Amino acid sequence: MMPKRLNASEIERHLERLTGWVKDEGKLKKEYKFTNFIEAFAFMTRVAFLAEGMNHHPDWANVYNRVSISLTTHDVGGISELDVEFAERLTDVA
Amino acid sequence: MMPKRLNASEIERHLERLTGWVKDEGKLKKEYKFTNFIEAFAFMTRVAFLAEGMNHHPDWANVYNRVSISLTTHDVGGISELDVEFAERLTDVA
Repeated sequence: MMPKRLNASEIERHLERLTGWVKDEGKLKKEYKFTNFIEAFAFMTRVAFLAEGMNHHPDWANVYNRVSISLTTHDVGGISELDVEFAERLTDVA
Repeated sequence: MMPKRLNASEIERHLERLTGWVKDEGKLKKEYKFTNFIEAFAFMTRVAFLAEGMNHHPDWANVYNRVSISLTTHDVGGISELDVEFAERLTDVA
């Protein structure tokens, strides 16, 4: 089933409780910082399992202890409920 | 020991045998494409161990089955022998 695309006010409401997440260039984004590379990649491994399990894959990047994650839903051309759910679940794995 | 910074002609010579690598914005870059996300992340895990083992960490990004890797050596402000060695070793893990 196609996830529901969210409008600007719906996204704003979700962002109120999604700590550290921002809307930027039509995507939900968050920057994570860890103690070192091993901690950063350990986090990435958890995220990888989450992504594969949800069949929803982030656009993400890493340099040493930093991981930046961008979420969007190509099928709806914007931010959807699936991105919000992904961001929520990331809070549990971080 | 500080790795040796390479000049333009040295980099060009190395690029002749580093298949798929290019010099872009003062970095060595390569794009990898895999069958799916699991294959891409399996590759990333191998790269992570290589990076930690060499204590030389890439600037890299992933979207689904694609992994892009950028190498530079901050300590010398450019591309060094360490980046070339990293690129060579990546060929073995890919």
